[in-house]
Amino acid sequence: MLGRTYDEQVCSVARALEAVGERWSLLIVRDVHLGLHRFEDLRLELGIARNVLTTRLNHLVDAGVLERRPYSDHPQRWEYHLTRVGLELGLPIVALMQWGDRHLLEPGQRPPRQARHRTCHGTVDVGYSCRSCATTVPAREVEVLPAMTAPAAADRGA
Amino acid sequence: MLGRTYDEQVCSVARALEAVGERWSLLIVRDVHLGLHRFEDLRLELGIARNVLTTRLNHLVDAGVLERRPYSDHPQRWEYHLTRVGLELGLPIVALMQWGDRHLLEPGQRPPRQARHRTCHGTVDVGYSCRSCATTVPAREVEVLPAMTAPAAADRGA
Repeated sequence: MLGRTYDEQVCSVARALEAVGERWSLLIVRDVHLGLHRFEDLRLELGIARNVLTTRLNHLVDAGVLERRPYSDHPQRWEYHLTRVGLELGLPIVALMQWGDRHLLEPGQRPPRQARHRTCHGTVDVGYSCRSCATTVPAREVEVLPAMTAPAAADRGA
Repeated sequence: MLGRTYDEQVCSVARALEAVGERWSLLIVRDVHLGLHRFEDLRLELGIARNVLTTRLNHLVDAGVLERRPYSDHPQRWEYHLTRVGLELGLPIVALMQWGDRHLLEPGQRPPRQARHRTCHGTVDVGYSCRSCATTVPAREVEVLPAMTAPAAADRGA
């Protein structure tokens, strides 16, 4: 239904969704973040058909999000690990998780998972910060605009 | 292909993707964030079939992400606006945009859009912060774990 429509759109949201936006793909990346690396583990956790999982894993490897590492030669078997690019997908996934925690849980239900700071064990939030005034920025103060060809004056060491 | 599989998963990522994770839906929400509110404007911008757009808009209204506001009585016409819940989807969308900016642009290509702070015009980044030690947290220091039944000691006013 979707085809490759997004390729024509010069938009990083569209490109990101083209790379990983189909729902299974983000759930696979989530599970690799959570420590699952093998085909059978992913298949059982997600309840996904083998052929669909194979296609999605190949796509994520081609997109540079996952890499294969051999863990058995006879028979040849691979684990799937996050690349540096894939590791950085943790941020949008946690942002999506926290949005779901705030708005999609049943009354009385607690968030099933929590993002924590390894060093102090505090709860970690995803949010906006400003490079220029170095503050946390509430969503209502954020605007998304066509990028200028030069960096904003506010970012040039002002 | 996907059906309603995610309903069984107690995971806010899965629930969030169930609510808005299909690629068109997030692109529709992106476009409403960018100021498009009418069916024909969204249809032309996205190059999406009418029936698919209708289905997706209805789903986003049912999920509480968008709301309809009348702008014409004869004929009856609606605009689509973000609810408070939908507004908060801006954060994961910008996180995904910035991931795409860093990893999916062609060599030499500049990010097409920029998140800016309305008040000082500085560039806005999405990132992690810690409630306990009140610092910006690099991704390598973030772990996602099953939530405890009580808040972490570090968050209890320590």
